[in-house]
Amino acid sequence: MSTSGTNHRNETQIAADQALPSIVITREFDAPPERVFRAYTEPDLVIQWLGPRRLTMWIDRYDAHSGGSYRYVHREDDGTEYGFHGVFHEVRPDERIVQTFSYEGFPDGVSLETAVFEDLGGRTRVTTTSLMDSFEARDAMIASGMGRGVREGHERLDELLRSREMEA
Amino acid sequence: MSTSGTNHRNETQIAADQALPSIVITREFDAPPERVFRAYTEPDLVIQWLGPRRLTMWIDRYDAHSGGSYRYVHREDDGTEYGFHGVFHEVRPDERIVQTFSYEGFPDGVSLETAVFEDLGGRTRVTTTSLMDSFEARDAMIASGMGRGVREGHERLDELLRSREMEA
Repeated sequence: MSTSGTNHRNETQIAADQALPSIVITREFDAPPERVFRAYTEPDLVIQWLGPRRLTMWIDRYDAHSGGSYRYVHREDDGTEYGFHGVFHEVRPDERIVQTFSYEGFPDGVSLETAVFEDLGGRTRVTTTSLMDSFEARDAMIASGMGRGVREGHERLDELLRSREMEA
Repeated sequence: MSTSGTNHRNETQIAADQALPSIVITREFDAPPERVFRAYTEPDLVIQWLGPRRLTMWIDRYDAHSGGSYRYVHREDDGTEYGFHGVFHEVRPDERIVQTFSYEGFPDGVSLETAVFEDLGGRTRVTTTSLMDSFEARDAMIASGMGRGVREGHERLDELLRSREMEA
């Protein structure tokens, strides 16, 4: 496994689907699927990378199993909190996670998120599709500047995957 | 409450959305939201109406609470079984149910279903929106003849709502 910095292959790509109200996020990581999957499902690992650096994350519950549920809070330095929750429809080890997602500031909004983990031979491509219930909601999500937080989260995940904690 | 047969107001309407890969099902019932909601969430009631008459329903689990999960099986006389499962993202009493839905014959397919219960003054309009992840999946669902089973289920629900078991 390379211990160098993130290379150019590992750029986060964020695309709005033309036909569907969805956002497709693609990212490659320099670690095998089993390791990336752990970072997506074990709460003590998730808390170390999910979201932008400036926010502190607090996990209420994170039961990443088929039929489980989750809730977490991102907190600004000034105390402002953003809560998120949902349920895991399917967690298929090292391959696939399907979950619902709501931002508690807009409780009637809900999206269906599917993350697929592809083995690139010691490396992993994660493709996450967030399907929303309207094009307006999808476009508002993109306009909110979510891209920066997603990219920063992925960079933090690169760091976590290189850390001693994640070594087998 | 009228004890007459289903009147013309209570026709099941099934529409394919133009812009989204969703199916919108609208139906009115001659009972208040609290009663219709019970019939949608209590497993011993759900089992009496969900699906076409020719199938026998068997419930594995039906925990209709936010964060709960469900699984049930519809069985043909010849023993053929159709399994369905998902999770409840939100169950808001008498108002709203948001759940995921998968047919086990096509385990990678998943839809997000939102049922909204509107109080029409002693009567109830239920609008169910099933959002799928592609137009192909949506069109295949409609082509499968799901409409007949949905209509028959609603007629069975009319009967249940008129029964002694459901009287307050």
